[in-house]
Amino acid sequence: MDIGKAEETLERIETQPPDVVIRRLPLYARSLRYLLQEGIHSVSSQELGERINVTAAQIRKDLSYFGEFGKQGIGYDVEKLLDHIERILGLHHDWPVALVGVGHLGQAIARYEGFRSKGIRIVALFDSDPAKRGQEFAGLTILSSEQIATVVPVHHIKMAIVAVPAIYAQGVTDLLVAAGVHAILNYAPITVRAPEGVWVRYIDPVAVLHSMTYYLARDHNPMNNGA
Amino acid sequence: MDIGKAEETLERIETQPPDVVIRRLPLYARSLRYLLQEGIHSVSSQELGERINVTAAQIRKDLSYFGEFGKQGIGYDVEKLLDHIERILGLHHDWPVALVGVGHLGQAIARYEGFRSKGIRIVALFDSDPAKRGQEFAGLTILSSEQIATVVPVHHIKMAIVAVPAIYAQGVTDLLVAAGVHAILNYAPITVRAPEGVWVRYIDPVAVLHSMTYYLARDHNPMNNGA
Repeated sequence: MDIGKAEETLERIETQPPDVVIRRLPLYARSLRYLLQEGIHSVSSQELGERINVTAAQIRKDLSYFGEFGKQGIGYDVEKLLDHIERILGLHHDWPVALVGVGHLGQAIARYEGFRSKGIRIVALFDSDPAKRGQEFAGLTILSSEQIATVVPVHHIKMAIVAVPAIYAQGVTDLLVAAGVHAILNYAPITVRAPEGVWVRYIDPVAVLHSMTYYLARDHNPMNNGA
Repeated sequence: MDIGKAEETLERIETQPPDVVIRRLPLYARSLRYLLQEGIHSVSSQELGERINVTAAQIRKDLSYFGEFGKQGIGYDVEKLLDHIERILGLHHDWPVALVGVGHLGQAIARYEGFRSKGIRIVALFDSDPAKRGQEFAGLTILSSEQIATVVPVHHIKMAIVAVPAIYAQGVTDLLVAAGVHAILNYAPITVRAPEGVWVRYIDPVAVLHSMTYYLARDHNPMNNGA
C-alpha cells in the first residue's frame, strides 16, 4: 500500500458522517418520497433543500459522505437517490419493533400509520397492566412486560418504543437491553441510562415547547399572570 | 463608557446562549423537579449531570450564560436553580396553546397530562372535520379550523401544536401564523415554511427511528429479508 492510499483510507475513517447528518437523511428520504408521489423524477439540491429548509450546499455536503450523487447542472434522479439513502439507513432490511406501554399514548403510537413505514414494523405490544394482557390492539395481542425477555429474542427485535410513565422507564429500558434491544425511542419524560452501544433517543414535546417559550418570552409580551 | 466596559458588553452580546443550550434547560428543570419530589434540596453539577447524561462541565458552562449559580464545593440549591431556569425559559408566565387536529394523535396530545405542565396550557382545540365541531374533548369544545383567525388573537395564543395529516400542515401553519402564532410544534411528517421570527419545531418519531436503523444496520445483523 503506498502512502497516498494509506492517507486516503485515513481520511475516509476520519470523515465518518456526524450524527447530525444521519439525522437529516430520513428527512431527505421522506421529501424524495413526496416528490415521487407528485410524479417528479428529477430534482436539484436547490429544489430539494427548499422543501426541507436546508441549503443546497448542505445537502451536497451531507451526501458527499456517502459517495457521488447527481451531476452538476442535471440534479438527482429521485428514485435512485431515495433508494441509495434508504440503503444507507438500513431500510432495505426489516426492523421489527417492540412497543412497551399501551396506554393512551401507546395506543396512538400503535395505530399511527407512520410507524408502518419502510423498514419498520411494530410486531409486539407489552404492558404491565394485567387487565390489558391478552387484549387485541392494532392487530396484535398485548403481552405482559415479563414476556419481554423471551419474546424480544424470538422476534429478533433490536429496536423498541417506550411509552410508559416516567417512573417505569428505567426498568423497562433495562429489560429491553437485557433482551437484546440496541435502539430505544423513549417517550417517557425522563433520561434513562443504557450501556455503551445502545442508542436511546427521546420524543419530548414538553421540553421542546419549554425551549420555545424562551424565545417567545424574549420576543413577545406574554399574558401577564406570572409570578 | 471606558473601553473595558465596551468590550465586556460586546462579549455578552457575542455569548448569546446557543439554541442547543436553550434546548437543554428544560431537561435541567425537569430533573430538578424530580429531585424536589424526592425531597432532595441540594445537588452538585456532577449529580445533576449523571441524571441527564450530561457532564458536570457542560452544565456549568450552560448555566454560565445566565449568571452565577451554586458555589464551588457546595452545589446548587435545587429550588432556587429551578426557579431561575423557569424564569429564563419564560415559564413564570402563562402560555396558552392551540391544538389543531383532534384525530387519534391529537386526542392523545389533548389528554396528555405533560402538556398541563408549568407555563403551558392547551386552551383551544381546532379540527376541520365538521362532524367533530362542537364536541367536547378534554374539557374543551372542538372548534372549526376557520375559527383559528378569530379565536387565537382573543386568547393571546402565541404557541400551537399541529397534529394534522401532512397534506394539511402547511395550510394550518399559514392560518396560525396569520392569526399571531409565533411558535409551532409540528407533529405532521412534513417540513413547513414559516416567516422569519416564527419558530417551528418537529416531533418526528419515524425520522428518529430511521436514523437509528443506520446505526443498527452498521453494528448488527438485521433480519435478512431485505431487497
